[in-house]
Amino acid sequence: MVERRDDDERWMAEAIELAWGGLGRVEPNPMVGCVIVRDGQLIGRGFHETFGQAHAEVNALADCKTRGESACGATAYVTLEPCCHHGKTPPCADALIRAEVSRVVVAAVDPFDQVDGGGVCRLRDAGIRVDTGVGLSAATQQLAAYLKRVRTGRPWVIAKWAMSMDGRIATTSGESQWITGESARRGVHELRGRVDGIAIGMGTMIADDPMLTARGGGARTPARIVFARSRVPSLNSRLVESASQTPAWLVAGPQVPDSEIDRLADHGVKVIRVQSSDSVSMIDEALVRFGSSDNPSGQPMTHLMIEGGGELLGSFAAGDQIDECHVYVGAKVIGGRAAPGPVGDPGIAKLSDATGFSLEMVDRFDDDVRMIYRRTLSAE
Amino acid sequence: MVERRDDDERWMAEAIELAWGGLGRVEPNPMVGCVIVRDGQLIGRGFHETFGQAHAEVNALADCKTRGESACGATAYVTLEPCCHHGKTPPCADALIRAEVSRVVVAAVDPFDQVDGGGVCRLRDAGIRVDTGVGLSAATQQLAAYLKRVRTGRPWVIAKWAMSMDGRIATTSGESQWITGESARRGVHELRGRVDGIAIGMGTMIADDPMLTARGGGARTPARIVFARSRVPSLNSRLVESASQTPAWLVAGPQVPDSEIDRLADHGVKVIRVQSSDSVSMIDEALVRFGSSDNPSGQPMTHLMIEGGGELLGSFAAGDQIDECHVYVGAKVIGGRAAPGPVGDPGIAKLSDATGFSLEMVDRFDDDVRMIYRRTLSAE
Repeated sequence: MVERRDDDERWMAEAIELAWGGLGRVEPNPMVGCVIVRDGQLIGRGFHETFGQAHAEVNALADCKTRGESACGATAYVTLEPCCHHGKTPPCADALIRAEVSRVVVAAVDPFDQVDGGGVCRLRDAGIRVDTGVGLSAATQQLAAYLKRVRTGRPWVIAKWAMSMDGRIATTSGESQWITGESARRGVHELRGRVDGIAIGMGTMIADDPMLTARGGGARTPARIVFARSRVPSLNSRLVESASQTPAWLVAGPQVPDSEIDRLADHGVKVIRVQSSDSVSMIDEALVRFGSSDNPSGQPMTHLMIEGGGELLGSFAAGDQIDECHVYVGAKVIGGRAAPGPVGDPGIAKLSDATGFSLEMVDRFDDDVRMIYRRTLSAE
Repeated sequence: MVERRDDDERWMAEAIELAWGGLGRVEPNPMVGCVIVRDGQLIGRGFHETFGQAHAEVNALADCKTRGESACGATAYVTLEPCCHHGKTPPCADALIRAEVSRVVVAAVDPFDQVDGGGVCRLRDAGIRVDTGVGLSAATQQLAAYLKRVRTGRPWVIAKWAMSMDGRIATTSGESQWITGESARRGVHELRGRVDGIAIGMGTMIADDPMLTARGGGARTPARIVFARSRVPSLNSRLVESASQTPAWLVAGPQVPDSEIDRLADHGVKVIRVQSSDSVSMIDEALVRFGSSDNPSGQPMTHLMIEGGGELLGSFAAGDQIDECHVYVGAKVIGGRAAPGPVGDPGIAKLSDATGFSLEMVDRFDDDVRMIYRRTLSAE
């Protein structure tokens, strides 16, 4: 039985909702959800839960079996094109063919080299009807970080800052603790616990001596990354001292002497040497390394979080490298021309150079507001 | 029949909701709403609609009559203590006594000199049961501007600014149009149309040559006010040129020469001379004038809006003179250390000096966010 189009949308929405369960757990794989439907009844559901483990389609087929249902003749809704290659697990397209589903509905085609339409072809070759593009917009939003990495080789960059109602991160006298409250800070720790890396500049390194760990746990342990153009972190910093327990990386510009790098490496800091001394180019060079396997984790990074300071955020902004912003606003007015803002030099000179952002979400933590913006995706 | 306590709360909430209908129309009077209830049935409702016209109680009693109901033996819920003096209209307490209501429930007692409990006493003397404090918190919020003016002699100050996601009002090169979109700017014009005055500093005067009128109309025509410590607006400015049609005031510090003042006065600008040259003291002196009848309108001002620039807002912040903030955030990241923020010098040096604000409301206009904050009222 062929499902009607609005049923298709509804089932795909359910598959997309399921897929979120993998956020922070499946990277560098994409989040994927799958529901299997026969005669208008859901008979199986699954999502990719953990990197290296079964994919969404396999979990959904297993769920059919658990329920005593056969997927034979059913329709499978999958948020991303089923894979057709042997990775850590066998191809999902083959699993669907073996299960004798009669139709597969796909939201987004996987641009990953080893798939890129191959999964759809393999299903069609097996006589299965395949429809793509159902729920495409929502799936593309959900998969934005994965799609960016596969297409551009760079991770999705999430900038986070907290500021006063008038956009200050400290008073003119330098006082900065606290502009937002405890419950807003919990939101930050949740985000830290699902990204692959957290980057700061040397100014923040020296001023705050931060640990950059995700308090309260999380699915991932992000690498703590310092961008260093000339100065490097002290061996006594909390980040370096804990480098053997929790990954700490240094992105080192050409002005950083080899001797400094060797000393930090002896303390367990992993170093990425970049050739560019200009901060905007240095960032791009680092992002390419982060997005490939050629970085200290040996895995491509999907989500990179930038926690400041102003110079690093200003350089990310100038390079049009920010994909998502989490802006926290505390209920205080600070003022003073010399009171610093969250995003420093160089920033952008013309408003027309600004990255186009769309407001994704606004919520509140007591009197603090969190706004989440994402880069406006061009129509595809 | 005596109403139960939770019914009391419910009827008072309805009276408070009604009262909002007077916002921008009744000042310098307070907004007041009234509902009249007998045997659990609403038999009359009214609010103070326009300055100089009938008060809420009188309108509600008239509504009873229109419905063919008698208020005799009924309960009247009034958001603010009925007046007991002859102002523009006869005392409302007397109208309730004549209507032979058996009970009056009041949210807030009116601190205005000529009332201040006198209305409650007059009702009780007439043998009417009076209960006060029902819905007090919501009524106090609603009446905050009126209560501030009566208690302190100063208007309620609403600061408004629009900024980027990183708290900038312009790029380092000075480009500022536009950070927020058209629909957010409509929100600003609505606010302008219900306040008594809109103030700017000389920096904004020179940079923007603004008209400061409420496009799209509104209940009030606010006075357009320039704070001038030494320099004054040009005779060719749009504000001065339109001064004979729309009120334009100048708050002039002691350094402004009499000759300048005379020239502006010849063009229809009304001048308030203040003695203080320091910006924080100058503001307080002006606020006292605004809050009294000793200003060019001859009426006390209830709501004053501050539209910038940074110096004026920085001085209002430093003097703890901001009661409400309307912060608009546009979906752009600007950056750059020299890019100006909305609130300039002097601002506050220590976070503990910051005015305590509570987040009242967050809403959005397309990709722009508006946050409304109000001074946290001390427990009363």
